[in-house]
Amino acid sequence: MKLIDGNAIAESIIAELTAEVSQLSVKKPVVAFIRIGEDPASVSYVRKKEKTAERIGIGSRLYLLAEDVNKEELFAQIDALNNDPDVNGILIQAPLPKHIDETETFNRVLPSKDVDGFNTLNIGKLCQEDHQGFVACTPAGIVELIERSGIETVGKHVVVLGRSQIVGKPAALLMMRKALPGNATVTVCHSHTKDLPSITRQADVLIAAIGRANFVTGDMVKEGVAVIDVGINRVEDSAKKRGYRLVGDVEFEAVAPKSSHITPVPGGVGPMTVAMLMRNTLRAFKAAKVT
Amino acid sequence: MKLIDGNAIAESIIAELTAEVSQLSVKKPVVAFIRIGEDPASVSYVRKKEKTAERIGIGSRLYLLAEDVNKEELFAQIDALNNDPDVNGILIQAPLPKHIDETETFNRVLPSKDVDGFNTLNIGKLCQEDHQGFVACTPAGIVELIERSGIETVGKHVVVLGRSQIVGKPAALLMMRKALPGNATVTVCHSHTKDLPSITRQADVLIAAIGRANFVTGDMVKEGVAVIDVGINRVEDSAKKRGYRLVGDVEFEAVAPKSSHITPVPGGVGPMTVAMLMRNTLRAFKAAKVT
Repeated sequence: MKLIDGNAIAESIIAELTAEVSQLSVKKPVVAFIRIGEDPASVSYVRKKEKTAERIGIGSRLYLLAEDVNKEELFAQIDALNNDPDVNGILIQAPLPKHIDETETFNRVLPSKDVDGFNTLNIGKLCQEDHQGFVACTPAGIVELIERSGIETVGKHVVVLGRSQIVGKPAALLMMRKALPGNATVTVCHSHTKDLPSITRQADVLIAAIGRANFVTGDMVKEGVAVIDVGINRVEDSAKKRGYRLVGDVEFEAVAPKSSHITPVPGGVGPMTVAMLMRNTLRAFKAAKVT
Repeated sequence: MKLIDGNAIAESIIAELTAEVSQLSVKKPVVAFIRIGEDPASVSYVRKKEKTAERIGIGSRLYLLAEDVNKEELFAQIDALNNDPDVNGILIQAPLPKHIDETETFNRVLPSKDVDGFNTLNIGKLCQEDHQGFVACTPAGIVELIERSGIETVGKHVVVLGRSQIVGKPAALLMMRKALPGNATVTVCHSHTKDLPSITRQADVLIAAIGRANFVTGDMVKEGVAVIDVGINRVEDSAKKRGYRLVGDVEFEAVAPKSSHITPVPGGVGPMTVAMLMRNTLRAFKAAKVT
């Protein structure tokens, strides 16, 4: 069993990006973050992204809006960043307040600055296998973990648990595309799937993204499976100071011994998303220079 | 075994559309066809679409461009139709000449007039389960055949053979969505799939769209499977005046006896595509009236 070290892989990508950015002339890529309200998780995520940008040499700008911001104000801010030639990427930290429509908001960002890959046009490009589009950071991170861990996908059976727009579906589309990693036979399972273990046991690669703690048990996988665990779930743990610990969608202790590769939680897919955001920002910068 | 009569189902949709169009006041929906060159198949397809539009009471306009039309001329024609408030739908008959990029051309059509559903934005909407978008006519026709034949999909295993942008992938996305028909477990297979029969034998619903004559044989399916055969392949047949006959991707004689439902070729999915185009045009008309 080989543990997939998401932190180490993310660090090597950050090192590659840092080297590439250092080669750039005076002008550097810039990513703009819009954060609405003071949700502690959002504060922490955005800070992490700012720090990673700084390490790489990518400039960042932070725009803070009040929790009760109205749509017009938010869209005016997005438009201003769309029109600012110095800004290459725009990220609006989710979740948004309930009175703001997420799809409409993400679609307000210019597709060429949509480094989060949530834009409908970029999702369409993913489906069309147009590699000029931006792929959302979590599925992009999954693919990168698979590639850098040497997990074969061609002709393999990839089973995806979960059909979300943000993870399950794009991961499935990436795994079936005519590129590497890809060219896999792909099955997408979800809450309506019958006799799930009979399907997960066929998986050469299992991507779990359903948000249910320890859902995938040892008897649900075959020997030699490669497991990408996207779930980050809190379970009560009185031994921890904060009263909980984080676990994935996969029961690690039971599944790991049967796996060829497996991601831990935390430290698997999580660290990859920030690295992918930075890679997308650098790509947006290079594309803007060309045109 | 129940034969799915695509002609009859298409006719009933056409009758429904005719009834709805007859209720409209003076202004009627209009679809514009752009045909490039004189490819006999294209001539025949467009004529069929014109005739069906006429039967329903949908107006149609035909624009003929020379095989050597340049991109600027073609795009000027598309732009003129985009800007014409009397035109609700625009269809550019494929295949296009080799010197014209198909994706770029289909994306030139306004998403709100893209009744063919080939626009990147409409493909993204399909992936996002935004039902305001237009779904391409062949996958929409597949879904309609499944629904009107009473084939259950919730929790069923749908196996899609083929991962094309125009059929396989959108059909897979439709079958896995949180709507009816949908909510199925979906597996997408293709040329790289290993031990294909072991997967097709799991199919409760099999959608074959690979373009290989009689590829799916009797031993590749289980008893009770519902089969949607999207293939239209020519095989030599000296008994026929034209020297060939049309067959599907499925070996009908061997598979039909094991099937709960099966589409014939021709007369299955084929007739549905024109009906779906007309339904999309009526929807585009109604959406244009609202806004």
